[in-house]
Amino acid sequence: MSVKLVIIGSVAYDTLQTPKGKRERALGGSAVYASTVASYFTKVGLVGVAGKDFEPAHVDFLKKHQVDLQGFELKKDGETFHWSGSYGEDFGDATTHDTKLNVFETFDPVLPEEYCNAELVFLGNIHPALQIKIIEKVKKPKVIALDTMNLWINITNDLLKQAVSKVDVLFINFQEALMLAGEKKFAPAVDKLLKMGPDRVVVKMGELGAMCATKTDRFFTPAFPILDITDPTGAGDSFAGGFMGSLARHGDYSENGFRRSMLYGSAMGSITVEKFSLDSYLNLKPETIENRFNAIKKMVTVE
Amino acid sequence: MSVKLVIIGSVAYDTLQTPKGKRERALGGSAVYASTVASYFTKVGLVGVAGKDFEPAHVDFLKKHQVDLQGFELKKDGETFHWSGSYGEDFGDATTHDTKLNVFETFDPVLPEEYCNAELVFLGNIHPALQIKIIEKVKKPKVIALDTMNLWINITNDLLKQAVSKVDVLFINFQEALMLAGEKKFAPAVDKLLKMGPDRVVVKMGELGAMCATKTDRFFTPAFPILDITDPTGAGDSFAGGFMGSLARHGDYSENGFRRSMLYGSAMGSITVEKFSLDSYLNLKPETIENRFNAIKKMVTVE
Repeated sequence: MSVKLVIIGSVAYDTLQTPKGKRERALGGSAVYASTVASYFTKVGLVGVAGKDFEPAHVDFLKKHQVDLQGFELKKDGETFHWSGSYGEDFGDATTHDTKLNVFETFDPVLPEEYCNAELVFLGNIHPALQIKIIEKVKKPKVIALDTMNLWINITNDLLKQAVSKVDVLFINFQEALMLAGEKKFAPAVDKLLKMGPDRVVVKMGELGAMCATKTDRFFTPAFPILDITDPTGAGDSFAGGFMGSLARHGDYSENGFRRSMLYGSAMGSITVEKFSLDSYLNLKPETIENRFNAIKKMVTVE
Repeated sequence: MSVKLVIIGSVAYDTLQTPKGKRERALGGSAVYASTVASYFTKVGLVGVAGKDFEPAHVDFLKKHQVDLQGFELKKDGETFHWSGSYGEDFGDATTHDTKLNVFETFDPVLPEEYCNAELVFLGNIHPALQIKIIEKVKKPKVIALDTMNLWINITNDLLKQAVSKVDVLFINFQEALMLAGEKKFAPAVDKLLKMGPDRVVVKMGELGAMCATKTDRFFTPAFPILDITDPTGAGDSFAGGFMGSLARHGDYSENGFRRSMLYGSAMGSITVEKFSLDSYLNLKPETIENRFNAIKKMVTVE
């Protein structure tokens, strides 16, 4: 089976503390979260880089999920990107204690030939120059989606806007949506982001859910209420993985198709935060995904 | 036609400044907003108090909306409750400059005999002791709903919890939901509020919409995106007025009926903020309400 969805982003080890406990060097990174999640829906290729310390068990984890690793580079002359941080009692924004970019600092994604024909591309949160480089390489994807963060909004604003103008879907946090748009209110911010070029803006709002906007439509998906969050790391990338993966699986690019994908995104985000790191995906059953999807769909159904 | 929905709350003059302009002594107050809005759906009775300065034109405004005024007292020995405040560029929480309770300080709502048989009761944001007094007077209402604010959470916490335990629906802001529950996360906060007694908790989240929770269900309604907010005053009371009014009109107390009422609540909140004070209701056409309802329903529809 050829790769239908290409995912570019970070491969990381996370040392983190949440109110539920501590983990040292747990598997993480935007590309790892999004690829693992999307693997439940479609054939995924991961483009990323790790170092000599990357454990064979973690390569096996990705292989077990049938993630294609042609574009995954294991560098022998450096260490894997390492992030340390902690979450307070509200599980809100993490406090970063340390960031060691290591091999990720010189990450220059090379797209395997086969990937240039992929139907969907997800550009995880990396430097906008690299995102643009990939956009220029892929041939005729049906959907290119891009995620970003406050760092790029602050230090590479023009380049980021250039990247955003070239994609179909922009994933962005609520606060970052206001920041990138330079607005104080939600509705005008979304309006402005759409004018930057993408057909769709997906605003992620954590435990309040997410909103998908086009010039003519708005769709809200709630977050599934998790009473006992363990680790919020990767929730946004899992949302993107579920969104892109389900789009690839059902191949329905109508407004309703995107809405279904919003629900799958929400489902996968909620599954990720129930356990540390990617532990939710050690033995996840496909019916758990469908049950979660149906539960969230029920949360928006009204006659 | 007898009164089907009784609304108790404040009658006020608001002197306010928003980024869109300034208004002196504009008509306001929770009972005025909720009653005016609900009047588009059902026969409403307003229980409240105003002073000798209350303008005949404002009495006429309520009469024009066929709001029953048997429980509306015009005191000759005092002035109407007067609030002064301003909103910043984000139209977020208002900064209060001055509050003159005036006749509202000794407000002791008296329920006209006829009102004791009303089908629905909305207890606007007043002292919980007064809310409890009303709850004990009404006979067999199908739905009693209560709104509150941080002031009562702080200074009359036990009494407020007692009131909450006696109602069917609790309306509350997002921040106040966390505060009253003593939780830092949304899902466990909602869980705790439901355990306090009400069948339903409606959490208002401003421009992000609102959520209605029961022990088994969650329903989200988005806010209709208003690009050009004029005055956010009364949005929450308008939501409650639309919610209670539409419940009274369709008489469907099933989960789906409550969900439809959430959409009407959202519709009315969005109509209110388009103009200063209650100006949106000077010449509102019923089809504007239905169009807004349908637009919001479309924002949550997915097959």
